[in-house]
Amino acid sequence: MSDSHRFPENSVGLVAPQTLRVEQPLALQSGRSLPGYQLVYETYGTLNANRSNAILVCHALSGNHHAAGYHSETDKKPGWWDSAIGPGKPIDTNLFFVVSLNNIGGCSGSTGPVSENPATGKQYGADFPLVVVEDWVCSQVALSDHLQIDQWSAIVGASLGAMQVLQWSIDYPHRLKNALVIAAAPKLTAQNIAFNEVARHAIRTDPAFHDGRYAEHNTLPETGLSLARMLGHITYLSDKSMDDKFGRELRSPELTFDYNANFQVESYLRYQGKAFVGRFDANTYLLMTKALDYFDPAKAYGDDLTRAMQQASAKFLVVSFSSDWRFSPARSREIVHALIAAGKHVSYAEIQSDLGHDDFLMPIPQYFSVLTEYLRRVAEQC
Amino acid sequence: MSDSHRFPENSVGLVAPQTLRVEQPLALQSGRSLPGYQLVYETYGTLNANRSNAILVCHALSGNHHAAGYHSETDKKPGWWDSAIGPGKPIDTNLFFVVSLNNIGGCSGSTGPVSENPATGKQYGADFPLVVVEDWVCSQVALSDHLQIDQWSAIVGASLGAMQVLQWSIDYPHRLKNALVIAAAPKLTAQNIAFNEVARHAIRTDPAFHDGRYAEHNTLPETGLSLARMLGHITYLSDKSMDDKFGRELRSPELTFDYNANFQVESYLRYQGKAFVGRFDANTYLLMTKALDYFDPAKAYGDDLTRAMQQASAKFLVVSFSSDWRFSPARSREIVHALIAAGKHVSYAEIQSDLGHDDFLMPIPQYFSVLTEYLRRVAEQC
Repeated sequence: MSDSHRFPENSVGLVAPQTLRVEQPLALQSGRSLPGYQLVYETYGTLNANRSNAILVCHALSGNHHAAGYHSETDKKPGWWDSAIGPGKPIDTNLFFVVSLNNIGGCSGSTGPVSENPATGKQYGADFPLVVVEDWVCSQVALSDHLQIDQWSAIVGASLGAMQVLQWSIDYPHRLKNALVIAAAPKLTAQNIAFNEVARHAIRTDPAFHDGRYAEHNTLPETGLSLARMLGHITYLSDKSMDDKFGRELRSPELTFDYNANFQVESYLRYQGKAFVGRFDANTYLLMTKALDYFDPAKAYGDDLTRAMQQASAKFLVVSFSSDWRFSPARSREIVHALIAAGKHVSYAEIQSDLGHDDFLMPIPQYFSVLTEYLRRVAEQC
Repeated sequence: MSDSHRFPENSVGLVAPQTLRVEQPLALQSGRSLPGYQLVYETYGTLNANRSNAILVCHALSGNHHAAGYHSETDKKPGWWDSAIGPGKPIDTNLFFVVSLNNIGGCSGSTGPVSENPATGKQYGADFPLVVVEDWVCSQVALSDHLQIDQWSAIVGASLGAMQVLQWSIDYPHRLKNALVIAAAPKLTAQNIAFNEVARHAIRTDPAFHDGRYAEHNTLPETGLSLARMLGHITYLSDKSMDDKFGRELRSPELTFDYNANFQVESYLRYQGKAFVGRFDANTYLLMTKALDYFDPAKAYGDDLTRAMQQASAKFLVVSFSSDWRFSPARSREIVHALIAAGKHVSYAEIQSDLGHDDFLMPIPQYFSVLTEYLRRVAEQC
């Protein structure tokens, strides 16, 4: 796929998204259903003859199908997990056939709030049903069937992506051999939900939101979405990393005694908020945060995570980051303890890190060694 | 002052705010000045003959002068620190004459954004100058002079209140014998500033804010102020305390798959946000958060906190709370280490607690023992 000298050697190079149209209705956990849907996905590497070397990558809150490589010769930024996916990288495309999709409810091409509602001919907007992690897994099974992958060699995800991996392992135990669960939690705490609620409240109280029907009003809840992103950013970074990066550095030599951005960190957050508005849909943001809040796989098993994990057949690699306060190592250890109690095969690595939750995107040597070694052994069994 | 059987026995009972009008202009750190100002304050207990048993209480972000007792027979809630101030309580009004004021820039009676601007005859609103901790201390010195208190037996504060105590000890070393610095930080981190900036951004981007001139537009930035308060609340509470209080408890038996408040914690935050709007001014909130951001007493001493603390003559009691992640015990220890390096007399207590930053308001036995014992010895030297 790579045919350009302008991309780094260990890049998957130029990639083109593909689209799967699923005509069967999808019954959702909410009781509603989607009459049909499309999934946009990318693949990197080559599927082997016995279709046993496939890895599925599940994305987190603001991610999408474009996990690695470039969409054009002039593309400046590669996919969101390009650090980890490529020839010779931890998710090695010389060994694996990697599939990455945009989830339904997303805003990057798969059916979601910005798609046309076949019932009205207009954008779904606020009428798009609330989908949750179980629903995503169902749609990913449809994609697996389409690709004729009976069993994934591994399913990999971080944060909300890791929640999909856990759900896969419980709901479709025989369709994955390995589950890589990175920077996860078995369910959100009240504080996690509280941060999401403030973000949602910011979006929903923006006068431009119009109960989610902003497209009909030719407007965008830019202020609310921007605030949501600013707040999100604080929770993705550690206190220390923000101090290392910005400290109390000022934008002008002296304090200005006004409400302009005096400190660099203020300016950074405002920029991040604004940039997000141009690339993300507010209804999708609401939906993704609700999927996080609702995730609780133990619930169907009498609130017993061990019983939930007893369903699984996969082997597990659980990875957490010491500086992650959004989903701290303690939350990953809850998963590990449940897996051990359930008699499952689990490896656990707590990576010493500085950045916070966002560390899952970083090429931290200890982290990448763990992924590389684990997946090298997985490849031997393909 | 107490003349009612309906108040608890260890309450200071009925109290009435008093007002000091200062006619001298106050030169502010910003370079601007206030042509004169008024301070609203309350007193509890009796000043002794040699005026040596006075304690000044400095309030935090959303506090005011009403720290203890009741304003009427039908008043249901006492002042904000009634747990700690009263006969037989840690700040014992049988021993001390306690003074509590509303800071300038506040919205509870002292001159602030909701006061009349003498230059225009209208509310100051956005024209009220940004005041900082040093300015508050100057205005508190004026109050001390008015009350003919040459030296406070102790100045006490928590959070932003504790920052005023630190500034007093540096700027007016001989006017206080003891400095009680509770749940403090010597300056905000980038993360602290970031949370404040999101709160300010929520207020300032509310269309009803009108650049702070909402009074002229007969409106209130309710949405923004409410969001700011919701976010604040998350940072005042610990993850564990929110989980203990709310966990993932639902408001209805089942998930509703909509954007109503599904979890109790969502409903709690929304309520807190709404309730705040009725009692607090948005311009004051902006000003108070900026005062927090700007606080950095070491700055005038070459960014050397030890050099700053060398100015002090007071004895110090520093108290932190184990579950406080807004200003963690590590931040208090920075103050303690600087005081030790500066050769000052300092006692330090890290209180085992669950609630988070808000613990400073709670009658935690270990905490109240420390305050009681420290102040008992202070009283002996009055």
